[in-house]
This record gives sequence, C-alpha cells and structure tokens, in this order.
Amino acid sequence: MSLLSKQVGEYLEKASWIRKMFEAGAELKQQFGPENVFDFSLGNPDLPPPRAVKTALEELAARLDQPLTLGYMPNAGLPGARKALAGFLSREQEVELGPGDLVITCGAAGGINALFRALFEAGDQVVCPAPYFVEYGFYAENFQGRLVPVKCKPITFELDLGALEAAISPRTRVVLINSPNNPSGRVYSREELKKLVDIIQRKSLEQGRPIFLVADEPYRFLVYDQVQVPSLMAMYDYAIVVSSFSKSLSIAGERVGYVAVNPRMPEKQELINGITLTNRILGFVNAPVIGQILMEKALNSCVDQRVYQQRRQAMADVLEEAGVEFSMPGGGFYFFPQAPGGDDQVFTRKLFEQKVLVVPGTGFGYPGFVRLAFCVSEEIIRRSGQAIKRAVQGI
Amino acid sequence: MSLLSKQVGEYLEKASWIRKMFEAGAELKQQFGPENVFDFSLGNPDLPPPRAVKTALEELAARLDQPLTLGYMPNAGLPGARKALAGFLSREQEVELGPGDLVITCGAAGGINALFRALFEAGDQVVCPAPYFVEYGFYAENFQGRLVPVKCKPITFELDLGALEAAISPRTRVVLINSPNNPSGRVYSREELKKLVDIIQRKSLEQGRPIFLVADEPYRFLVYDQVQVPSLMAMYDYAIVVSSFSKSLSIAGERVGYVAVNPRMPEKQELINGITLTNRILGFVNAPVIGQILMEKALNSCVDQRVYQQRRQAMADVLEEAGVEFSMPGGGFYFFPQAPGGDDQVFTRKLFEQKVLVVPGTGFGYPGFVRLAFCVSEEIIRRSGQAIKRAVQGI
Repeated sequence: MSLLSKQVGEYLEKASWIRKMFEAGAELKQQFGPENVFDFSLGNPDLPPPRAVKTALEELAARLDQPLTLGYMPNAGLPGARKALAGFLSREQEVELGPGDLVITCGAAGGINALFRALFEAGDQVVCPAPYFVEYGFYAENFQGRLVPVKCKPITFELDLGALEAAISPRTRVVLINSPNNPSGRVYSREELKKLVDIIQRKSLEQGRPIFLVADEPYRFLVYDQVQVPSLMAMYDYAIVVSSFSKSLSIAGERVGYVAVNPRMPEKQELINGITLTNRILGFVNAPVIGQILMEKALNSCVDQRVYQQRRQAMADVLEEAGVEFSMPGGGFYFFPQAPGGDDQVFTRKLFEQKVLVVPGTGFGYPGFVRLAFCVSEEIIRRSGQAIKRAVQGI
Repeated sequence: MSLLSKQVGEYLEKASWIRKMFEAGAELKQQFGPENVFDFSLGNPDLPPPRAVKTALEELAARLDQPLTLGYMPNAGLPGARKALAGFLSREQEVELGPGDLVITCGAAGGINALFRALFEAGDQVVCPAPYFVEYGFYAENFQGRLVPVKCKPITFELDLGALEAAISPRTRVVLINSPNNPSGRVYSREELKKLVDIIQRKSLEQGRPIFLVADEPYRFLVYDQVQVPSLMAMYDYAIVVSSFSKSLSIAGERVGYVAVNPRMPEKQELINGITLTNRILGFVNAPVIGQILMEKALNSCVDQRVYQQRRQAMADVLEEAGVEFSMPGGGFYFFPQAPGGDDQVFTRKLFEQKVLVVPGTGFGYPGFVRLAFCVSEEIIRRSGQAIKRAVQGI
C-alpha cells in the first residue's frame, strides 16, 4: 500500500518515463563525455548573472554583521524591493503601479500557486492555450482546480479564439497565458490579445463575476526582431502579471518573482491581502531575502541578450538544414519544431540515438512537436547539425 | 462579492485583529520611539549570522561569473549540501542518514507543506499538542486536512498522553510535535516521547497503516541547563524530522530548511520521491540556492547561544519580580507565562497600555497564557520590568 495520496502517487507514476529519459541522458554524458551529448532538454540559463548581481552580493556580505539583515520581513517582500519593482513595472506595463500592488514571490511558480490558493474553490477551472508550461496543470490541481488546455493553431501558434471562447465555462476563474511562450516561442500580438480580452469581458459579464487574465511573463525581456510584448494591464482591469527574474538575471535557483495586480482592479486590495496571506501559509513565508536584495539592485540589468540572438540564428540554421519545419520564435529561448513523421515520441527517440536530447511536445499538451532549449553554447548548437540531420533521415 | 475563495476570505477576517495589534504596535513605536516600546511579539532572531555565513557569501560573490552558479538544480537540493546535511543529521539524530534521505526545503514551513501535500487525502487529520505554532492549522487546511489540537498539562506543558491517545482516529495521518516548543519553551523528555511512540505504534497497528510522527525542530540548537532533545528517529521508524536554519544561523528571511525521512522507514524512497515532487509542484521548485550554499558552509556554526542564555535569565527575573507564574523554558527563545486574572486577551491589552507587546495564547490554541519572545537585547528586557509589573497590578 502506498503511503502517498492517490493523486501524488499517480503523478509519480506518470512522471517516471520523463525521469527515465533524463537518467538515460545523464548516462549518455557519463559514457561519451558531456561535450559529445547535445542536451537541448533543459531551460536552465547558462549565461552568468549581470555584473550588478555580483556587486550587490559583495555589498551584502560587507554589511552582514548588522542584525536582521537576513531576517524575516513583511510577507509581501522588502519594502525597498517592492518600491523599486513597482517603478520598474509601471514603465513596463504602461499603468502606474505602487508598492502595494504587488507581492514578491518565490519565483513565478510560487506566485501562481499563491494566487490559485487565494482564488480557488474545488472544481474551478483555468483555461490555457496549448502548448503550455507543463507545471500549470499541477498548480491548478494543488488546490482542487483543473487546467483546460485549448490548442493554438499550428504551426504559427496563434491563439484559437473561437476554441478559447468555447472553453470558458461558469467554472472558469482564470485564463492563463504565457508570452513569450514556453515552449513555442510565440509572442501574442496586440490584436489577438485585444480579441481575447473582448471575449473574457463578455464572458465575465454573462457570468456575473470577473474572470482573471493572468500573464506569466518570465521571457518578456528576451524578444527578437523588434517584437513587442503588449501590456495586458493597459487592456483589461482584471489582468494580473506574474513573472520571475530566473532568466533575465540568470538566478533561477534563487527563486525570485512576483505577482502584480492591476491597480485599476476595484478589488485589488482584497486580492493583494489574499495573496500575501497564501504566500505566507503555503510555507513560502516570504521570497528569499538575498534574492530580493539582488533583484532590487540589478533590476535594470539583464543578461546579454545578443548571445541568445546568435544562438537562435544558429539553431534556425541547423533545423532548416535538417529539413525540419518550424516557426521562428519571437521570444524566449526555445524552438518548437514539428516532428518529421508526426510522432514526437518517435522523433525524440531517434534524436536520442544521435545523442540529441529534447522534450516531446506531448509533455506540453501539444503532440507532434518537440522542444529544443537553446541555453547552450552556439558551438554545441552548430555541432548538433549532423546528428539532427541523421535523426530526421532515420524516421 | 469577494474575489477570494470562501476559506481564504474567512482567514483574512479572523486575522484582522492580530494585524490591528501589530499596526497599533508600529504606531506606538513611531509615537514614542522604538527604544521606548518593549516588543516581545516577534520571533525574529536579532543576532548577526555566524562568521561562516559571511565568508561563504564572499566566496560565492567571487565565483559568480561561472555559469549556472545560481541556476536550477535537482529539486531536492544541491548534491553537496544534501551530503553535508546528511552527515550533520546522522550525528544529531543518532541514525545513519544518506543524502537521499532528505529534501532541502524552503524553511521548515515549506517542508511541512510539501510533506502534507504528498500525504493527505481530504479530511486527513494532524494530531498536535497545544500550545502549537499557529501556522500548522493553515498547513493542514491547504490540502484539505485538519489540525486536531490536544492540550498539554499546565503549567509545565508536559504531554497529556491519555488525551493524545483519545484524539488519534482512523483519519490521523500525522502526529506533529515541536520541541523545543514555540511558544511554551518545553522540551519533551525521552520518557514521555517513548510513551507517545508506544501509543502511535499501537494505533498504527490497529488501523493497519503507519501514523507518521513528525518533529519540527528549528530550536533544537538552543537548549539550556544541559537539557537534551531526544532523537525520534532512534525511537520510531516512521519518524520524520523537519527543521530550518532560520534561528541557528539567523537567516530566517532566506528560507532554508529540510525534511529528513527516517532511513529505517521501509517506504522511505517513495516518500522522498513524493516530497521532491510536491516541493517542485507547489512552486518552491528548489530551496533558495544561496541559502543552501550558506547552510552547507556554515552547517557546524551557530549564533552565540550564551546571549540567549543571558536574556532568558533576565526575562525570568523580570517575570518573577512582576509576580507572574511561568515554567522556565528548556529551549527556544520564548516564555509562555500565565495571564494574571486568567484572560490572555485582557492581560495583552494591559501590557499594551504599558507599551509591552506580546501575543495572547489564544493564537496558539492555549488561552490563559501569553507569549514573550526574547529576541531583543537584555537591556530592553530589564527595562521592561517596571512596565510589566504595572500591567500585572492593573489587572
């Protein structure tokens, strides 16, 4: 008999094949040397943090003898960090946010969990365009909610507005989008977002309560070819922005992000109070203090985006050369090409045989495609070309 | 109409009087100067972190240019930190733990939440001696569980074993103890813990499944007068130890703790896999990386316990002089004296009028007593004597 809850036991069973793939990948690296395995499976930023992070850490070490430097703080975050972040977001989101309009959280993941905990009754639903970040489903189910994925149109991954509208039910509390998207790289345009907002507003009116539009935006800083990520707060009063500094500052392990509530939302204070409470009682208590200090000091810094720009070009060259069909990502550091032959798990296996590690689209609610993360050196990307070509030819 | 879930809305309503008290305390400080307010309400360690923490932070800053230094890691924690912690716990808990027997978590609070998420079906119960850390109730309810408090015997706060036995039902998954106890300062003796284990073993047998004994031990490092905190792992196969470095290293804001599973538990691997997964999907992902690095380097260090020892004596003198009845705390940094007149909220108000801030025992499931935290200078403690005396005389 299992000691775990039925649901968690089932999660572990389902997860086992992914785990096996990672273990097999680690074995490959041990056997052939890590430089001979082309690992595109992980979105773990490999660029060093910007200089400002290092400076902030040195300054912090120098004043560590002052009592309470690393002590508890208000659950919503260090007042100075909240203030700085509010200024930063006011510029970014095109509406005026105050320090009281946001809660600093343990990454975007912690933020979404705190938000869902604050909102959900059992059976509440989250409508989400697919492909989507695979963890969203767990976040909803942690609090007896349920994710309702709605496929975007292949192969451009634009929103299927008709299908989204049809998926919104009286149990829908949240529509959750992620742009630039992991895994597709798609950045939703102002036009399609406006149409989405129209739908959500109409449905909210019909149902007599607001449906939240939640934007998870950790890749906002990383867009290409003058692509713009539109501000949802400027479009919709019930917009909530969740994000993290994992990618922009290369501090993914330190877990710093935030939930920002649209200052135009009439009930914003109640919602902020709720998230501050759930952030506490879920055991986060507050976002890690050192991460908050680094974030405040490095808020206007960023990893070198040109490196990602060059890698993106390299990956595009490699995929084109291999004859794989794909949409050029507008942002983020992922490609999501079509699996030749149509079966993402077969293609993943063929790639694995060539020592190329990717994640099948099935894991993102979008079979028939695979995800390649380009958080690896341009040299590795270029060198993978022959291996990917062989995998395609082997289908 | 509230935007929040019914439960979270109710939490906020109930919390409001505590919040008002804190706000009133902050106002007092602003009006009379913080040095003229005797704030014993918060358990926020005011001693600077030990030297090793500072050194570790300096070393980290120096190697920050290396990619992935602050990147993602295995969800259970940095391999080196897990290994060091396993060695540390093997000495402390008197059983041999390996790195795979523990998960590094976002404080003890994050650890308990990950554990409950892994175990609970709706309606599962946590039996817990009162007084207890007030957040436990929320942690259980986050995952549809319920806390079942069982009062300890006044005024020594020894376990009421008969009442604990009677409280264990077929829905009991966990018995949760906290020793040294917040707020009572009580350290449970080996003898009473052995009796408790006997009861839990018998009940587990009756019910055909193991009941976990979970020990939350963040104050283990801080005991007085040669008091010993017995190892539960040596006593019971289904013991789980949860703790944090918030107090021992004065890094409460950075959120580093752990869940350690008894290596003698037959299903330990399943449980560790479950907690590793729930730690991820609850949005912690992994404990903050900088905190993990500091913890590993400072594992054998500790804040200066003699300072707490002296403050404890000062607080005992003050309370005795004021004619308040109390048990001398065996560990931790709290006193939990009886409220003269019997009403903790009246006494709290009387103290407040004298600019002395405490927390009423009602908040810890134990009315009739109040909690004083001695995380403040000895001088403030001594100076509070007259004010406390006046409050007692005013009852």
